[in-house]
Amino acid sequence: MSDTRTAVDEPLAVVCGRGSLPYAVADAIIGRGRPVTLFPIVGWADREAVARYPHYWIALGQFGRFRRLMASQGCREVILIGGLTRPSIQQIKLDWTTLRLLPRIVRAFRGGDDHLLSGIAAIFAHAGFRVVGAHEVAPEILAPAGPLGERQPTARDQADIDRGLAVLSAIGPFDVGQAAVVADGRVLAVEAAEGTDAMLARIADMRRQGRLDGKSGVGVLVKAPKPGQDRRFDLPTIGPTTIDASGRAGLAGVAVMAGATLIADHDAVVAAANRANLFVVGTREQAAGPE
Amino acid sequence: MSDTRTAVDEPLAVVCGRGSLPYAVADAIIGRGRPVTLFPIVGWADREAVARYPHYWIALGQFGRFRRLMASQGCREVILIGGLTRPSIQQIKLDWTTLRLLPRIVRAFRGGDDHLLSGIAAIFAHAGFRVVGAHEVAPEILAPAGPLGERQPTARDQADIDRGLAVLSAIGPFDVGQAAVVADGRVLAVEAAEGTDAMLARIADMRRQGRLDGKSGVGVLVKAPKPGQDRRFDLPTIGPTTIDASGRAGLAGVAVMAGATLIADHDAVVAAANRANLFVVGTREQAAGPE
Repeated sequence: MSDTRTAVDEPLAVVCGRGSLPYAVADAIIGRGRPVTLFPIVGWADREAVARYPHYWIALGQFGRFRRLMASQGCREVILIGGLTRPSIQQIKLDWTTLRLLPRIVRAFRGGDDHLLSGIAAIFAHAGFRVVGAHEVAPEILAPAGPLGERQPTARDQADIDRGLAVLSAIGPFDVGQAAVVADGRVLAVEAAEGTDAMLARIADMRRQGRLDGKSGVGVLVKAPKPGQDRRFDLPTIGPTTIDASGRAGLAGVAVMAGATLIADHDAVVAAANRANLFVVGTREQAAGPE
Repeated sequence: MSDTRTAVDEPLAVVCGRGSLPYAVADAIIGRGRPVTLFPIVGWADREAVARYPHYWIALGQFGRFRRLMASQGCREVILIGGLTRPSIQQIKLDWTTLRLLPRIVRAFRGGDDHLLSGIAAIFAHAGFRVVGAHEVAPEILAPAGPLGERQPTARDQADIDRGLAVLSAIGPFDVGQAAVVADGRVLAVEAAEGTDAMLARIADMRRQGRLDGKSGVGVLVKAPKPGQDRRFDLPTIGPTTIDASGRAGLAGVAVMAGATLIADHDAVVAAANRANLFVVGTREQAAGPE
C-alpha cells in the first residue's frame, strides 16, 4: 500500500443498514472504477446481498473493530447508507473504544433520527474519517427533475404536491418524518417513526375500510429531506416497493425532491410506476406555506 | 307551544355521530333541566344508546326531513357531536332540500375535516338554526386544568407535552389531525386522517416489533384543537378507550388542552388512568416553537 494514492483510489467503506440501497450505491461506486469495502451491520444488513462484495460484519458498538478494519483496508472515506431503525440494547455489542465514546453516543441517540445520524457522523469524523454522501460518490442514484415514467402529474396532482411539501416544511424543525400523503387538498397521513411503507399501508387500510371517500387514483406521496438536513445521510429514498405500496394505497403518484432523493433501483421504479399507472416525479424545491 | 319561551326551555337538538360523547352531552344538558331531542345519523350513531332519548333517525342528505322535524319539535338550537368519518356515497340519501344545497355541501366536503364541519354548520345557520357548542351547553364535560387522576407529569413529561403542542401548532394551518405522540423529545407519531386510536395502536405495534427503543412508561399523547378552530364542533375528545390505548402504547400519560377538550366519561377516564398508572392532565395554551 502506498501513501501517495488519492482518496478516490482507496476503497470506499460502505456501512450498510437495512434495504437494497447500500448495494445500489456500492454498484454505482464500482461502476465508476472505485473499489468498495462493505461494513454490514449485524441485524440490519442483508446477508445474501452482502456476500457479493468484500465485507466485514460489524455489530453496533464495535467502533474499535471498525476502526482497525478501516486502517487495515486503507480506507479513509466512509458512507453510511440504508435504514437504521433504533437498535434494542440486545443488538449492541460494546468494545472498549466505543465504551469511551459512550457519553457522546448516548447524546446522539436522544432526540430524533437526525441527531442519531449526525451524532454517528461526528464520531466518525472525530476518529479521522471523512463521511461522504451518496450524492457525492454516486450522483446517478439521485432522482432527476421531471417525470420518471410515462404518466405525468396533472394540475390537481401538482396542487397536492405543493401542499405536501408545505406540510413537510412545517414539521421539518421537529425532526419528524420526511413524507406525507395529500389527496385532493386533504392531508391523509404524516410520517413520523413508523416509516413510509407503514404510512402507505395505513392509507390502503383506511381505503379498504371505507374510511376515505373511496375514490382511487387520487393523491400523492410526497417525500422531501428535512430543512437544513445534512444530505450526506438519511436522504429520502424510494424504490420499487414504495411505488407498489403507493399503488395499493390508491394514489395517483409519488413526488420526490430532484437531486435530494435516492432511488434504490431506477429501472425497477420506472417499471413499477408504468405497471401501476402512477406518476413518479422529481420536483424542484420551493417556498412553502400553508396554502 | 308558546312563542314566548326562550331557547333554554325548548328542546336542544343533538345531531349524533359515532361514539359515546353525544350521550354524555345529552345527559349533561338534561341534568341542567333542559330537554333534548336526538337526531342520530344512520350508520354512525349507536342504536342502543339512542333508544334512551326522544329521537328521530336521519340519514345524511335528509336535510329537508331534519328541518321539518326541528320545526315540529320547536327546536331552534342544534349541537353537532360525535365522530363523523367521511361518508361513502351509499350512506347518503338525498332529499329535495338537500339537493338544492348540494353545490354548497360538495364544497364543504372537499378539503379537510374543518371544512366539512364548518360547511355543515354554515348550512344549518343558513336555514335559521343556531349551532351551539358542547362547551356552551355542557361545560362540565370539558377538561379542567391540572391532573385528573393520581399520577402527575414529571419535568420530562412536561417537555414532551410542550414539544407535542408545538408540533400540533406547526401543522395546524394544514387542517391535519389534533394529536401527536412525543417520547423523550422524539416525535413518534402525528395524527392525520387515521384518528387517535389508530395512531396509538401504531405506537403499540412498533413497540411490540422492537422498532422503538423498548422503554415503556415514557411518552405523552398530546391532543389540542387546531389553531383558529371553531370550537363549537370537533373539539378534541378523550374517553376511557383513549387512556387504555395510551397504556397499551406504553406511554406515561395524556395531555389535553384545558377548557378545549371534551371528556366523554370523566369518572371512567380517571379510573382508567389510575388503573394503568398514567397521568391525564389539562394544560394551558402557550406560545409554541420547534424547541
